[in-house]
Amino acid sequence: MSSSAFSLKRTPGTAPGIEHDEIANLPVERERASITCIDYCPAQVSIQEISDLEGFVNYHRPDWSVVRWISVDGLADMHAIQVLATKYNLHPLAIEDLIHSTQRPKIDSYGGGGSEFQARLFIVTRILFITNGRLQHEQISIFLGHNTVLTFQESRRPEWEFIRQRINAKGSRLRGNDASFLAYSLLDVVIDKCFPILEYYSDRAEELADLILEKSDPQLINGIHQLKRDLLQIHRVIWPMREVVSSLLRDSHECISDATRVYLRDLYDHIIQILEITETYREIASDLIDNYMSSISNRMNEIMKVLTLIGTIFIPLTFLAGVYGMNFRHFPELEQPWAYPAFWFICFLVALVMVLIFRHRKWL
Amino acid sequence: MSSSAFSLKRTPGTAPGIEHDEIANLPVERERASITCIDYCPAQVSIQEISDLEGFVNYHRPDWSVVRWISVDGLADMHAIQVLATKYNLHPLAIEDLIHSTQRPKIDSYGGGGSEFQARLFIVTRILFITNGRLQHEQISIFLGHNTVLTFQESRRPEWEFIRQRINAKGSRLRGNDASFLAYSLLDVVIDKCFPILEYYSDRAEELADLILEKSDPQLINGIHQLKRDLLQIHRVIWPMREVVSSLLRDSHECISDATRVYLRDLYDHIIQILEITETYREIASDLIDNYMSSISNRMNEIMKVLTLIGTIFIPLTFLAGVYGMNFRHFPELEQPWAYPAFWFICFLVALVMVLIFRHRKWL
Amino acid sequence: MSSSAFSLKRTPGTAPGIEHDEIANLPVERERASITCIDYCPAQVSIQEISDLEGFVNYHRPDWSVVRWISVDGLADMHAIQVLATKYNLHPLAIEDLIHSTQRPKIDSYGGGGSEFQARLFIVTRILFITNGRLQHEQISIFLGHNTVLTFQESRRPEWEFIRQRINAKGSRLRGNDASFLAYSLLDVVIDKCFPILEYYSDRAEELADLILEKSDPQLINGIHQLKRDLLQIHRVIWPMREVVSSLLRDSHECISDATRVYLRDLYDHIIQILEITETYREIASDLIDNYMSSISNRMNEIMKVLTLIGTIFIPLTFLAGVYGMNFRHFPELEQPWAYPAFWFICFLVALVMVLIFRHRKWL
Amino acid sequence: MSSSAFSLKRTPGTAPGIEHDEIANLPVERERASITCIDYCPAQVSIQEISDLEGFVNYHRPDWSVVRWISVDGLADMHAIQVLATKYNLHPLAIEDLIHSTQRPKIDSYGGGGSEFQARLFIVTRILFITNGRLQHEQISIFLGHNTVLTFQESRRPEWEFIRQRINAKGSRLRGNDASFLAYSLLDVVIDKCFPILEYYSDRAEELADLILEKSDPQLINGIHQLKRDLLQIHRVIWPMREVVSSLLRDSHECISDATRVYLRDLYDHIIQILEITETYREIASDLIDNYMSSISNRMNEIMKVLTLIGTIFIPLTFLAGVYGMNFRHFPELEQPWAYPAFWFICFLVALVMVLIFRHRKWL
Amino acid sequence: MSSSAFSLKRTPGTAPGIEHDEIANLPVERERASITCIDYCPAQVSIQEISDLEGFVNYHRPDWSVVRWISVDGLADMHAIQVLATKYNLHPLAIEDLIHSTQRPKIDSYGGGGSEFQARLFIVTRILFITNGRLQHEQISIFLGHNTVLTFQESRRPEWEFIRQRINAKGSRLRGNDASFLAYSLLDVVIDKCFPILEYYSDRAEELADLILEKSDPQLINGIHQLKRDLLQIHRVIWPMREVVSSLLRDSHECISDATRVYLRDLYDHIIQILEITETYREIASDLIDNYMSSISNRMNEIMKVLTLIGTIFIPLTFLAGVYGMNFRHFPELEQPWAYPAFWFICFLVALVMVLIFRHRKWL
Repeated sequence: MSSSAFSLKRTPGTAPGIEHDEIANLPVERERASITCIDYCPAQVSIQEISDLEGFVNYHRPDWSVVRWISVDGLADMHAIQVLATKYNLHPLAIEDLIHSTQRPKIDSYGGGGSEFQARLFIVTRILFITNGRLQHEQISIFLGHNTVLTFQESRRPEWEFIRQRINAKGSRLRGNDASFLAYSLLDVVIDKCFPILEYYSDRAEELADLILEKSDPQLINGIHQLKRDLLQIHRVIWPMREVVSSLLRDSHECISDATRVYLRDLYDHIIQILEITETYREIASDLIDNYMSSISNRMNEIMKVLTLIGTIFIPLTFLAGVYGMNFRHFPELEQPWAYPAFWFICFLVALVMVLIFRHRKWL
Repeated sequence: MSSSAFSLKRTPGTAPGIEHDEIANLPVERERASITCIDYCPAQVSIQEISDLEGFVNYHRPDWSVVRWISVDGLADMHAIQVLATKYNLHPLAIEDLIHSTQRPKIDSYGGGGSEFQARLFIVTRILFITNGRLQHEQISIFLGHNTVLTFQESRRPEWEFIRQRINAKGSRLRGNDASFLAYSLLDVVIDKCFPILEYYSDRAEELADLILEKSDPQLINGIHQLKRDLLQIHRVIWPMREVVSSLLRDSHECISDATRVYLRDLYDHIIQILEITETYREIASDLIDNYMSSISNRMNEIMKVLTLIGTIFIPLTFLAGVYGMNFRHFPELEQPWAYPAFWFICFLVALVMVLIFRHRKWL
Repeated sequence: MSSSAFSLKRTPGTAPGIEHDEIANLPVERERASITCIDYCPAQVSIQEISDLEGFVNYHRPDWSVVRWISVDGLADMHAIQVLATKYNLHPLAIEDLIHSTQRPKIDSYGGGGSEFQARLFIVTRILFITNGRLQHEQISIFLGHNTVLTFQESRRPEWEFIRQRINAKGSRLRGNDASFLAYSLLDVVIDKCFPILEYYSDRAEELADLILEKSDPQLINGIHQLKRDLLQIHRVIWPMREVVSSLLRDSHECISDATRVYLRDLYDHIIQILEITETYREIASDLIDNYMSSISNRMNEIMKVLTLIGTIFIPLTFLAGVYGMNFRHFPELEQPWAYPAFWFICFLVALVMVLIFRHRKWL
Repeated sequence: MSSSAFSLKRTPGTAPGIEHDEIANLPVERERASITCIDYCPAQVSIQEISDLEGFVNYHRPDWSVVRWISVDGLADMHAIQVLATKYNLHPLAIEDLIHSTQRPKIDSYGGGGSEFQARLFIVTRILFITNGRLQHEQISIFLGHNTVLTFQESRRPEWEFIRQRINAKGSRLRGNDASFLAYSLLDVVIDKCFPILEYYSDRAEELADLILEKSDPQLINGIHQLKRDLLQIHRVIWPMREVVSSLLRDSHECISDATRVYLRDLYDHIIQILEITETYREIASDLIDNYMSSISNRMNEIMKVLTLIGTIFIPLTFLAGVYGMNFRHFPELEQPWAYPAFWFICFLVALVMVLIFRHRKWL
Repeated sequence: MSSSAFSLKRTPGTAPGIEHDEIANLPVERERASITCIDYCPAQVSIQEISDLEGFVNYHRPDWSVVRWISVDGLADMHAIQVLATKYNLHPLAIEDLIHSTQRPKIDSYGGGGSEFQARLFIVTRILFITNGRLQHEQISIFLGHNTVLTFQESRRPEWEFIRQRINAKGSRLRGNDASFLAYSLLDVVIDKCFPILEYYSDRAEELADLILEKSDPQLINGIHQLKRDLLQIHRVIWPMREVVSSLLRDSHECISDATRVYLRDLYDHIIQILEITETYREIASDLIDNYMSSISNRMNEIMKVLTLIGTIFIPLTFLAGVYGMNFRHFPELEQPWAYPAFWFICFLVALVMVLIFRHRKWL
C-alpha cells in the first residue's frame, strides 16, 4: 500500500537508537557513499570530494573556514556514517532515524548546556519529486552545529547544486552568513521544490476536468483518486514541516542566529501557502469526482428516459395492432376498405399526441 | 487552475529575499509606475504626482507634514521600487513579497529596537473586485513607519480616491490622526469593498434559486459551483486578514497608536461579519446544489413512474388482444356477435380498475 | 437572500464611526422616537415619558436616583440620538453600530482609566421573535455606565414591560441592585425570549414529522428546510451572545459589580442550554429530511417493483398468445378441441408459479 | 419533541433566582417530600427519617457526627425546600436550578472567602435509567459544604441504597472519609449507572443487526434511529459531567479534600470511558443504518435485474411469434411441416444463448 | 458488540478501588500466576522464577541489584496480587484498574512528596496482537518505582523475551540504565508491536482492492467494514498512549530520569507515526468502500442499459410484426410476393439504424 506517507520498518523488541560501534555491523550492501565537504567564509570557498574519510576527519578544518558543510549522498555506506557519527558525536537515536530514512519531518535538539553531547539540532525533512509521473519523496537528515552542517540523503540531490552556486557566488547573502543560514537555505530549497510539483498537479487537474466533459472512462476516476491521494501525501509530508519551522521560530536555540530567524518566518509563510494550495486542489479534486459521478448518472438517466419514452410510444400502437389481429368473426372494422389506412393514421396520431404531451411536460 | 487563491511563482533554489541592488536587474517590462505623494497635517495638505523620483527622495519632507503617504501604482517599474526601497530601507524579504504579489494576507514586523532596520510594519492585503462577472483580487502591500505609509498596488485603485477625499476634507478624523490611522483606513476600505461584492453574490444566488425552480439546465449546476468557489475564494482571501488585524490588536507595536487600536477592533468586527456572511452564503449554495439535484431526480422519478404506469396498463390489454388473435379451431368466444364489443368493454374495465388501484395507492 | 443573519449596509470608503455633529445630517425619515426615563433606588421609583429631550438633559438627575434607565424606541430620530450621544459622550464607532442596527451581538468597552471618554460598556444584542410565522430579530443596543443604562431598540419591545414591573415591585432584587444588574436583567429577558421560540419550533418539527408519514408533498421539504434555516439563524444570533457573556464573566470591568457577575454565570448557562437545544433540533430537522427522502425513495421503489412484477408475469403469457396466433399450416395443437381451455389453464399456471416464486423470494 | 436533552420551562421576563421566602408561594401540588438524614463518623452511624422538619433543623447535630447527609426525595414539597434553604443558606440561583430540575449537569461554587454565603459547591447531575424500554433521566442536585451534603432528587433513587450500605459497613473507606468523599461516591454511583445502560444498548444493537440480515422491515430503521438518538442523549447528559469533574480536579476548592481528589481522577477516567463507548456505539448504529440502506437497495437492484432479464429473454421470442402470425400471402415457412417444431427449437436456442451470454457476463 | 474498545464490567454502587485485604476475597478461579523476578546492574544479572512468593518478599534484594523487575503473568491469582500489593504498597484504585483489565491506556502518579504512599507511576497500556486473523488486545499494567518495575499481564507475553535478551546482553544500553529506562523499553516494545500489525492490514487492504476489481461479492463489503473497524480499534488503543507518553515528557516525575526522557521523545514520534498510518489506512478503507459501491452501481447500470437497449430495438419490430398480423380484408401489402422478404429487410434496417444511433450517442 504505497499511499502511506511513511513506511514500516521497525522490528518490535529491538533496542532503540543505534550506537556508534553497532553501525558498521548493519547488514547492508556495501556501496560507497559520495561525500562532499564545502568550507566557506565571506572571502574564500573550498570544495572537496572526499575519498579518504579517515584521513579527512583527522585533519582540523582550515582556520578561515566559518561554515563547513559535509554532504553525504547514499545511506548504505555504514562505514562513512560510523566515522562521521564518531567525529561529530551524533546521538544514537538520531543515527537510527537517519539510517531508517522513513521518518516524518521532525526536529530534535540534542545536547548543549553542559551535557555529554555537543549542542546539535537534528532536522529530518523530506524532499518531494516526480519520477515517471509518480510522486516520490526522500528523507533528508540535517545536523546543525555551531558552524557545521551535515546533510545525509539517499541519492545526490540536484537541488543542492543551486546552494553550491550561491556559496560560490562572492558576496551572496548565503556566503556572508553562518551555519544556521545554510541549514535554512537547504530547507528553503526543499520547500520551494513543492511549487513546480503543485503546478504539475494543477495541470493534471485541468486535463482531467476536460476529459470528464468528453467521455466517461472509468480510468478517469482512478486518475482523479490518484490525484487526490498524491495531494494528500504532499499535505502529509509538508504538514509536519510546519511544526518543525514553527518550533525553530518559537524556541530559541543556540545554533540558530537571529538573522536566520527572520528568514525562517518567510519560510513558514511559504509552507502555509503550500498547505493552502494543497487544500484548494484537494477540494477541486473532490469536485471533479462529484462532477464525474453526476455526469455518469446524468448520462444514464438520459438514456433510460429516452428509451422508456420510445417504449411507451410503441406500447399502445402494439396493442392496437394486436386488436386488429384478433380473429372475431363479427369484426366490423376489418371489412372496411379504408380501415388499413385509417389504422396507420391513428397510429401516427397517437404517437404524435404522446410526443407532444412529453414535449409539453419537458420530458423530451 | 484559476481557483487557487494564490498562485505559484517561486523557482526552487533561488536565494530568499531580493537585495536593493538586485531589484533593477529583474527581467520585467519597463513600464513607469505612477507615484503619488500626499503630505498632510490637520492644517495643511499637499498632493503631488512624482515624475522625478530621484529628485524627490533627495528632498526632506516639509516640516509641517505629520503623515506622508507614498502610493505606487504598478509593480513593474523596478527602478522606482529600488529607489524607494533604498530610501526607506525596506527589508529584502518584504521586497520579494511585494514584487511577487501572490502572497496571502499577512503582517510582518521588521526592525525597531536598535536593529539595523528602522521599525516597519509590512502588511500584505488583497483587494477583491469583480470584472466582467469574474471575481478578481490584487495584492496591496502597505509599509507603515512612524509617520510614513507606503502602498504598492498593481494598478491605480479607485478605492483610494475615497481616502484622498477624506484627507482633503479639513477637520476629518483621518486628517487629524497619525500614520497608523491612515494604514487602518486603507485596510478598512479594502474590507468594506467586500460588502457590495457579497451583495452581488447574494443576488446571484437568488437568481439561481429562481432558475432552478423553472428548468433543469446543466449550466445551472456549473453556475452554482462557480458561486460556491467564488465564495470560498473570498473566504480564503479574508480569513488571513482576520489573523492580521487580530495580531495588530494583540501585539503592541511602536507604529500603532492607541487611538488607532480602538478602530482596528471595529475593523475586526467587520471581518468577522464578512466571514460569517460568506459562510452563510456557502451553505445556501450547498442547499442550492441539493435542491437542484433533488429536483432533477424528482423529475426523473416522476417521468419513469408515469411511463411505467402507462406500460403496465397496456400490458394486460396487449395480452388479451394476443389471446383473441390465436388460431384455435375451437374458440367459442370468436363466434359470438357480441364478442368484439365485449373485448373493448373488458379492456376499458381493466384499464379503469388499474387506474383506480393506482390512484388509491397514490401512485398517480 | 433573507437567510443571512446580518445584512450588508456599509458603503466602502466611508469614514468609520459617526461623529456627534454628523448624526443629525443622516438622511432618514424624521419620525420621533419614544423615550422613557426610569430612575430608581430601593426606596423610590419615577417613570417619565420624555417629550422635551433638550430640557430633560439639562436637568441633573434627582439625588436619590441610584440607577437611571433611558430607553429609546425607534432608531430614526437622529435628533434624539444626537442629544443623548452628546450628553452621555458616546463613542462614534458605537453610534455607528447603534444606527446601522445590523451588527452581530458583541461587547465593546470604551473609555475608563483616564481616557477622553468615560467608562462605558457597549453591548449589542439581538432579540428574536416570531411575526406571522416568520422568525425575526431586532438589534438592541445597551450602553452601561456606572449608574446609567441606555437602551436603543427599533421598536417598543413588550419584553421590557416585565422589567418595569420588577422595578416597580418594592423589595425586588432588581430594585435593590445597581445599573449592571439592570443590564444583566435586560440581557436575561432577551435570552429567555428564546425558550418559547424554541418550543414553537419543537411543535413545528413534530407537526412536520407527522405530515411526512402521511404523504409526500414537496411543500414539506421546503418546510423542513425553512425550519432548519430558522434554527441556524437562532444559533447564529445566540452564539456570539455566548462570547459576550463569557467576556463579561472573564474580564473584570469597573461597571460590572461582583453581585451581578454571579447572575451572569447563570445567564451563561442558559445560553449554553439554548445552543444545545438548537443543535438538537437541527439534528432532528436533518433526520426529518433523511426520513422524507427515504420515504419518497421507498415509495418510488415500491411502485417500480410492483409494476415490473406485473409486467414480468404477463410477458411469457403474451408470448404464448403470440405463439398460438401463428399461421403455420401444420400446427397440431390448434386442431384439438381442448386446446383453448388448456391455454387458459397454462396461463393461469404460469402466472401462479411466478407469483409463488416472487412470494418465496419475498419480492411481493 | 422528547429527544431534546433538557426541556424548556423558563418564562421570559421572570426574575432570576428564587428567594427563600418566594419558595413557599410556588404553585405546585402539595405532596410531602421524604427526607432522610444520615450522620456518621468512623465509629458511629445514625439514620433517621425526618417527619418534623422544623424540629429537626432547630437541633444541632450530634458532636460525634463528622458528615451529615440530608437526602430529599421529591421536589414538590416547597415547604421542606424553604426550610432547608434557610437553614443551610442556599443561593437563590441554586434554588431555582434545583426546583426547575431541567438543568444540564454543571457545577457552581457559591460563597466562601468572607462573602455573605458560606462556602458551598452546588453540583447538578442527571441520573440515567431505563423504564419500559425508554431512556429517562432525572436531575440530582448536590450541595456540598464542609461537613454536610444535601441531595435533592425527584424520586427515591434505589442507587442511594448502595451508598447507605457502605456507610453502614464499619471500616469502609466511605465511612472513614469526609463529606467531599460522600459527594464523590454519589457522583460515582450516578456515572457507574451508565455501564449497565450501555450494555442494554449494546444488546439492542446486536439484536437489530441480526434482524436486518433477515428482513427489511421499515420498523427496523425507526429502531436504529431511536437507538442512535438514545445514545446521543446519553452523550449529552454525560458530556457536561466531564466538565464538572474536570473542574473539580483542576480548581482547588476548600470543600474538596486531597484524598477525594485522587478518587475524582478515577471518576474522570470512567466518564471518558463512557463517552468513548457511546461514541463507538453511535458509529455502530450509523453503520447499521448504512447496512440497512444498502441491503434494501441491493435487494431492489437484484429484483429489478432478474425481472429485466426475464423480460429481455422473452422480447425476441415474442417478436418471432409475431412474425409467424403475419398474414402475408406468400410466406414460404408457414407451409413447411417442420416449421412449427423448428419455431420452438429456435425459441429454445435463442433463450439458451441469451442465458449463456448473461451468465458469461456475470449478469445472472 | 465486540467492536467497543473497552468493555463494561463495573457494577454501579460498588466501592471504588480495592483494598489490599479485599483482594483475596475476589471470586475468581484459583489459578497460579507465573512470576518472574529479574535483578540486574551493569555488571550482573539474576533471573528467578518465583514459586514461594511469601518467602520471596521477605528477603531483601541483593545489594548489587540496581533494577528489579517483577513480571506477573496471569491476573486470576489474587493471592499473588495481594502479596505484591502489600509489599509494594500499591494504591487501591490502581489495584482495581489492574484486576479489571479493561482500562484505556492511562497514567496515574500516586504518592511521593511525603504522602502515605511511596512515589509510584502507574501506567496502563494495551498490547495489540492478531490471533486467528482477529485483532485482540490485552492490558499491561506497569508500576514504576525508583528502582523497581512491576508488570502485570493476562498471559505470558512473547514480546518480553526481547527485553530479557537485552538485559542478558552485557553492555547493552538497557542494562546500563535505571528502572525508568526499563519501563520505557517495555512501552517501546508494546508500540513497536503495532508496526507488523499495520503491515498485516496493509496487505489485507491490497488484497481486498484486488478482489473488488474481480467480482462483487457482498462478503467483500463486510471484509472492508471489518478492516475499517479494526483500524479504528487500533486508533482507539494507541491514541491514549499518545497522551500517556506526552504526559511523561511534559511533567517531570521523580521516577523518570533525564536519560530516559530523550528516549520517550523518540517513542512519542513512533506513536504519532502509527496514528498517521492508521489514519491513512482508514481513508484507504473508505475509498475501498466507495470503489465497491460505485463498481456495484456501475455494473448494475451497465446491465440495465444493455437490457433496455435490446428491449428498445425489438419494440418497433414487434409492432411491425403485429401490424402485418392484422386481419383487415383490404390489406394491399399482404398480397405482394415480395412483402415477406421486404418485412425482414425493413426489420434489419430499423435495427441497424437504431444501433447506429445508439452508437453515435455513445449509448452502446
